[in-house]
Amino acid sequence: MQESFDVLASSGSYQVLIGEGLLEKVFSEYPDAFYIVDAKLKNILPENFKSCLFIEASEDNKTLEKMPNVILKMREAHLNRTSHLVAIGGGIIQDIATFVTSIYMRGIEWTYMPTTLLGMADSCIGGKSSINTLGYKNLIGNFYPPKSVSIDMRFIKTLDADQVIGGLFEAVKICYAKDNATFLAYLQDEPKFPLNASLAQRLLSRALKTKKWFIEIDEFDQNERLLLNFGHTFGHALEAGTDFAIAHGIAVGIGMVIAIEYAKQNNHLNQEGLGRAQMLSNHVRSMIAESLSELVANFPKLDLVQIVEKFDHDKKHQTNSYRMIIPKEGGALTIINQDKTEEVRQKITKAYQSGLNLVAYPHF
Amino acid sequence: MQESFDVLASSGSYQVLIGEGLLEKVFSEYPDAFYIVDAKLKNILPENFKSCLFIEASEDNKTLEKMPNVILKMREAHLNRTSHLVAIGGGIIQDIATFVTSIYMRGIEWTYMPTTLLGMADSCIGGKSSINTLGYKNLIGNFYPPKSVSIDMRFIKTLDADQVIGGLFEAVKICYAKDNATFLAYLQDEPKFPLNASLAQRLLSRALKTKKWFIEIDEFDQNERLLLNFGHTFGHALEAGTDFAIAHGIAVGIGMVIAIEYAKQNNHLNQEGLGRAQMLSNHVRSMIAESLSELVANFPKLDLVQIVEKFDHDKKHQTNSYRMIIPKEGGALTIINQDKTEEVRQKITKAYQSGLNLVAYPHF
Repeated sequence: MQESFDVLASSGSYQVLIGEGLLEKVFSEYPDAFYIVDAKLKNILPENFKSCLFIEASEDNKTLEKMPNVILKMREAHLNRTSHLVAIGGGIIQDIATFVTSIYMRGIEWTYMPTTLLGMADSCIGGKSSINTLGYKNLIGNFYPPKSVSIDMRFIKTLDADQVIGGLFEAVKICYAKDNATFLAYLQDEPKFPLNASLAQRLLSRALKTKKWFIEIDEFDQNERLLLNFGHTFGHALEAGTDFAIAHGIAVGIGMVIAIEYAKQNNHLNQEGLGRAQMLSNHVRSMIAESLSELVANFPKLDLVQIVEKFDHDKKHQTNSYRMIIPKEGGALTIINQDKTEEVRQKITKAYQSGLNLVAYPHF
Repeated sequence: MQESFDVLASSGSYQVLIGEGLLEKVFSEYPDAFYIVDAKLKNILPENFKSCLFIEASEDNKTLEKMPNVILKMREAHLNRTSHLVAIGGGIIQDIATFVTSIYMRGIEWTYMPTTLLGMADSCIGGKSSINTLGYKNLIGNFYPPKSVSIDMRFIKTLDADQVIGGLFEAVKICYAKDNATFLAYLQDEPKFPLNASLAQRLLSRALKTKKWFIEIDEFDQNERLLLNFGHTFGHALEAGTDFAIAHGIAVGIGMVIAIEYAKQNNHLNQEGLGRAQMLSNHVRSMIAESLSELVANFPKLDLVQIVEKFDHDKKHQTNSYRMIIPKEGGALTIINQDKTEEVRQKITKAYQSGLNLVAYPHF
């Protein structure tokens, strides 16, 4: 079964297709396109494919410094303003494709086929790119959505526990951010690892249609869409403090648990909110616990002082205050700004301690 | 006297201010902004100015490869998502500023103050950037208009004949492209070199308000706005064939004369159109003749075979046909596509010969 819906953007609307057999559909629809494909997926392309660039999905390959190489391949393949590009891969491939299509001859059209659950559940719509330069991770980026997004269920079975659970954490984050009804409906779908195709499609469909609401009312990340950074500032510090040994999606999940601890410890929640936030925290923790054997192996040691320092340097903060997204009052997400004082840093440290204990972080 | 109008863009509207004393106004409005300024204009900044990067306006400095250096300076000046950038300079400074503000932290707001007549009369609105990479001129670019454009008349008196006449050629091109009434009104303003401030303001105001019409109905260069490439394909080959010794605006003027010759020689014009196109051709030729002493000195030798080869490789053509913008029928500009045959190439060569003779090109 295939389903589709449209996302409205300032540059026009684009179609999102979810289902089986979509890879073949893209090949037959775009035989003359220029393909950018994750090097790991070489074998999915038909033999003697015309115009294709395989890129290893590494942080180094999504630097501004490497973009001229990609542009050169596009020029050598004689792409002009009416040419089409197809990108197949995870977030890094999406970042590269978004960026190069947005600037090649002032923009060409493209199609994206995400192959990771993070890509499928979240990043594939909204049009964001994140590019590194001169050692600064994600300092550069822009908004340039594809003309169509095709999510083929075949890729689900290639994903390990880390990837699936990480993707589901972005999905539940979106649903929680929207409202209580959406969050409850998501839980009733019973997300778990391993996913079968029909469950995956149901979860993805709900997450993406919910995300559609956020990006259509706030395409350029000024207001409501900022709430989708829930879990990201606390989580990003875990990634950065461990040299990115903790996968992004897992870090976001743990980041949500820590943000909830912060809200609890500082009395931001009323009785109803406490119940709602606790339900999310429990869900995240049970997902992690369920696959603990898979996850534990890769969990690195944490240095809490270093983690809080990374938190301190996050670019989402203001000059003089920390910007955090926490559940407040009845449980709805809210952006709060807290002065950068030693007192607040201690509160943040305490939330990290408590949250990491709760996810039974093995080396802490 | 100052005047202002707004330009509507998909990312919001922006204000265009034309008048005297605007440099001081920008300084007082944006004391904390990050300034990118043409290295030639160092002396216009107040002493001990806080946060400023001087850039030499060279083709090499508007390469994708050089962008990380500019981004680094912005990062070192602690720019965040709410910071403002001010760019003061000509087209190259505008290209660099458009590009870096569009990608720094996914986009920050900026103000542009053009200091050349090309910038003031044409490029300052519409939001286009053109960036070089790996030896390909303008292969890269995007659309990212500033939040405001301030055109200070003080810069008019710093410009030489080449710069003024080149800028006026872009202005008359815009007015001719719109309709006959706008073209006639432009001529009645009696454009000439040297310009005084009040004449300059009148001409600029008319050209920019006319260009506003084109970019508001076709922001991303798909239909009507393409007509503003009139003179550019014929002209660009003159620039490229002489290693850019002929200034862009002058090349556009000569390019329009050549496009008109092509239309005449191939019977694209009726009696009325012939009269209208001839009036434009005469105007361009008289502007060039008027300042011939200034212009001649820098005119390089031309190799017609090489020029037509450059024309052949222009990126605005289709795969199998030349795309030209010429006056047709009653004189209105029209895009025509002509198969890439030897016969068409001969017609193009003939138009070049005739057009270059008409502008009394000294070395031809």
